Amino acid sequence: MVYSGDPILAEELLFKPEHSLIDQSLHSRMGATTTNGDGFGIGWYDDDEGLEPGVYKSVAPAWNDANLREVSRHLRTRLMFAHIRASTGTAVQRSNCHPFRHGRWLWMHNGVIKGFHEIKRELIMTVDPSLYPDIEGSTDSETLFFLALTFGLEDDPVRAVSQAVGEVERVAGRHGVVNPVQMTVATSDGRSVWAFRYSSEGRSRTLFFSTKVARLLELHPEVEVLHHLGEETRFVVSEPLRDLSGAWNEVPESSCGVVGPGLAELRPFRPEPVPAAG
Amino acid sequence: MVYSGDPILAEELLFKPEHSLIDQSLHSRMGATTTNGDGFGIGWYDDDEGLEPGVYKSVAPAWNDANLREVSRHLRTRLMFAHIRASTGTAVQRSNCHPFRHGRWLWMHNGVIKGFHEIKRELIMTVDPSLYPDIEGSTDSETLFFLALTFGLEDDPVRAVSQAVGEVERVAGRHGVVNPVQMTVATSDGRSVWAFRYSSEGRSRTLFFSTKVARLLELHPEVEVLHHLGEETRFVVSEPLRDLSGAWNEVPESSCGVVGPGLAELRPFRPEPVPAAG
Amino acid sequence: MVYSGDPILAEELLFKPEHSLIDQSLHSRMGATTTNGDGFGIGWYDDDEGLEPGVYKSVAPAWNDANLREVSRHLRTRLMFAHIRASTGTAVQRSNCHPFRHGRWLWMHNGVIKGFHEIKRELIMTVDPSLYPDIEGSTDSETLFFLALTFGLEDDPVRAVSQAVGEVERVAGRHGVVNPVQMTVATSDGRSVWAFRYSSEGRSRTLFFSTKVARLLELHPEVEVLHHLGEETRFVVSEPLRDLSGAWNEVPESSCGVVGPGLAELRPFRPEPVPAAG
Amino acid sequence: MVYSGDPILAEELLFKPEHSLIDQSLHSRMGATTTNGDGFGIGWYDDDEGLEPGVYKSVAPAWNDANLREVSRHLRTRLMFAHIRASTGTAVQRSNCHPFRHGRWLWMHNGVIKGFHEIKRELIMTVDPSLYPDIEGSTDSETLFFLALTFGLEDDPVRAVSQAVGEVERVAGRHGVVNPVQMTVATSDGRSVWAFRYSSEGRSRTLFFSTKVARLLELHPEVEVLHHLGEETRFVVSEPLRDLSGAWNEVPESSCGVVGPGLAELRPFRPEPVPAAG
Repeated sequence: MVYSGDPILAEELLFKPEHSLIDQSLHSRMGATTTNGDGFGIGWYDDDEGLEPGVYKSVAPAWNDANLREVSRHLRTRLMFAHIRASTGTAVQRSNCHPFRHGRWLWMHNGVIKGFHEIKRELIMTVDPSLYPDIEGSTDSETLFFLALTFGLEDDPVRAVSQAVGEVERVAGRHGVVNPVQMTVATSDGRSVWAFRYSSEGRSRTLFFSTKVARLLELHPEVEVLHHLGEETRFVVSEPLRDLSGAWNEVPESSCGVVGPGLAELRPFRPEPVPAAG
Repeated sequence: MVYSGDPILAEELLFKPEHSLIDQSLHSRMGATTTNGDGFGIGWYDDDEGLEPGVYKSVAPAWNDANLREVSRHLRTRLMFAHIRASTGTAVQRSNCHPFRHGRWLWMHNGVIKGFHEIKRELIMTVDPSLYPDIEGSTDSETLFFLALTFGLEDDPVRAVSQAVGEVERVAGRHGVVNPVQMTVATSDGRSVWAFRYSSEGRSRTLFFSTKVARLLELHPEVEVLHHLGEETRFVVSEPLRDLSGAWNEVPESSCGVVGPGLAELRPFRPEPVPAAG
Repeated sequence: MVYSGDPILAEELLFKPEHSLIDQSLHSRMGATTTNGDGFGIGWYDDDEGLEPGVYKSVAPAWNDANLREVSRHLRTRLMFAHIRASTGTAVQRSNCHPFRHGRWLWMHNGVIKGFHEIKRELIMTVDPSLYPDIEGSTDSETLFFLALTFGLEDDPVRAVSQAVGEVERVAGRHGVVNPVQMTVATSDGRSVWAFRYSSEGRSRTLFFSTKVARLLELHPEVEVLHHLGEETRFVVSEPLRDLSGAWNEVPESSCGVVGPGLAELRPFRPEPVPAAG
Repeated sequence: MVYSGDPILAEELLFKPEHSLIDQSLHSRMGATTTNGDGFGIGWYDDDEGLEPGVYKSVAPAWNDANLREVSRHLRTRLMFAHIRASTGTAVQRSNCHPFRHGRWLWMHNGVIKGFHEIKRELIMTVDPSLYPDIEGSTDSETLFFLALTFGLEDDPVRAVSQAVGEVERVAGRHGVVNPVQMTVATSDGRSVWAFRYSSEGRSRTLFFSTKVARLLELHPEVEVLHHLGEETRFVVSEPLRDLSGAWNEVPESSCGVVGPGLAELRPFRPEPVPAAG
């Protein structure tokens, strides 16, 4: 889940909505696995633009984490990432939990790189040597992040992700792995949020973004909480937080969206093969 | 789950059967909650009769626990308890995981004492003062265990549990709590295993015991694994380990069963109010 | 450690001072044990007076806790408690870590109640029945807190602690335990901070409070950081945070101090036996 | 610590000796850091030669680990590794705890590879691609293990370690890192144990091996426990387990020892540069 908008208490986002992310741990209706209990993490931005986003993550299931509840009552933020992990094979340890961070960038990924065990070495060697020492864990998700950073995520996120995915598909192809990529990705620099939905096979996990608050108020003037949400409030979620008709819009397959100050776009996305010498 | 029979590797019991206890964590079909991720524990007896049973328990979900997998490959035992916890309110900490141990006795409980928060103090004061310092956690399950110990579990288990349950119902009644007890309980001294199924309301969690191996071989001569199980093999489980017709027999409501050397009985169970001066 | 003063980032208190509390974990020079690695906890008050203080505590040694570092960069507070635990026998679990909280009150204790195993039941029964269900752990420290609450900590802290200690000494005496109490205690309601140093034997852990900032500036105009500390800055610590002559004043044995808005007192402290019917 | 000899309960090795490894966590007198609280691990071999050694490791400090105590009472082994970790920079997570395992090989390392952050990528690329996917963590210790495996640890351990160390020194040199290697290493295939003591600078951590039991009995016939140790008992330790004159022999700098069935040797060790094309 990503929230962007007026400053809000993390507790409101994690524990209050009808189908909050914490509850999602237990009943993940649309997720690929029945439970998501291999870790939880949040990343949040302060108003201080010189400060890295904070990251709290843990292998403890979200519903058990007393410290998470405590801390969320005292963290106010205008942009927050939250993720529940269901391991696709790599170790359950804090360094393998999302969101991943690099400088002011946060990254979350739902999905998997098939055949990762076979192609990991080659992908890792493609990561820029100056970035390599910052890799902390062993997941496909973090590797994808560092490929995107290598291809210029900080300058042109859409292009960088496009090239990263293209690279994965190329390397997988050389190892005989078919349809390697399954992903929904969310990433941010603290100002804008980019969300991607793409799979080599065309069957990704679900991804939704929220309707503008002004429009929702027209549709549902009777819903109390809408009157308290700021105009710029946006959610990007794997599963709808609350059953409300017209509130959630599915991000189509092979698309990416970007939300930022005065900006909200949805456009096609496809991998871009990287020139051979890369 | 309780296993009793020839010495067997813990790994066989925890990770091998078609619907092993570990898998049960995720898909607990008949359990009250969708997942059982608040802790896992095993207790096992050695051949050394002077030795307390070992207890390995952890708040980490069973499927995540690498050390559990490692250890289970090297533990051979003829009597083992295994439990997955879904907290009914008390803290998630090792001291609140089952099985509980006292001397050579192990104890597991599925269910809840309703209104425990209100009646806990009175129940705790009923525990024998010499036993009180041994209470490590804060659960209703452990409290029930110590009440049973107070009422002579080590001498007459059925009577002790009967009195413990009766005491809980009596105290709950005085506090206006209706139908306080919901339980399936398994307890052992390393030689015999007692299993109880009882609820004040008559709607307990499920409980099954396995058919004798000799009989199962008559029913299913084609099933390979049956030829390797010792004659005295017995399982007591919350949910069947394997779909095999005739293999699992439900313990009726308000019953208790005992399995021991040359002994296998099922009889009615009901709480026994404790004389007023107790 | 207790900090009281202008709002400050938790990170400044935990990780910056020359001999910060985190470093204290490793080298506790004046502590009773060589390391203090059985848990860490902080409690902090927000400006919102209707809000309970937040509590982050963990069994992970402080120096390992990445989430603690992260969170401390984003928590700003004017009153914070921080504690490193060295277990004196009870289980290492989050519910046994300090600070303990009840409503707006926080409590930390360094020391031990000797013979606690023997006298615990009697002490627990003295705790007010309405408070009993709020006891989460199994430590002597938390028990002492709840005795103080029972004797009116929220109305007259000094008297309540005095009676609580008196009660412990009385009960211990009846069980043949000599010199039961060894304590330094810090407690607060979010406005004032009370610190106690007392032992039945007269040999307590160390306890220091800081000199007023104005005075320190006179003594050490060259020390940069002093110019940034607010006038009302006060520290209460087990060990000095920084070697600076004149900065730390020892709280004498059998004393208690209180610091609050416009108030700073140090006076004798002694246990008060509770009338027999209590 | 490494134990080799008659089958013995892990509990005897971990918790019984006067200065057991568990106590070493707290008071590590000769260690480089004041405490060793970043993790603990044991690896042990069964009599079953087709079985991998078991590995129990955890980030919890050894003295806190109730499951470790429990399990150690029930594990009987003739060859056991035990390690206490003090992190030299990489994350505190189970996958970074020792011992590391590959097939039937176990590996422990005390020390550090200086400048590891800078040279890691190049070292990792030298690891054989078929071995690379088995790397679980991010430590210098595990990397050194996999370099040794790459250079044929399973065929000629001394030569493989010699080449691995030579490779590290070579790569470090190219990056301007001086005196990169500081190590004591223990490794085994379940039959023999190899111990290495070497530093580029010649100042390694301490390493001792025990005198043969027969000789110790001559020296100290009055020491009870010696009469119970099997003839083939051997210890390799960082710090002596027990103060007993003549019991401990220091492994000199730049040496390696091997103990096996009917074999006990000590010889010089030095790195062997790897031919350029490797």
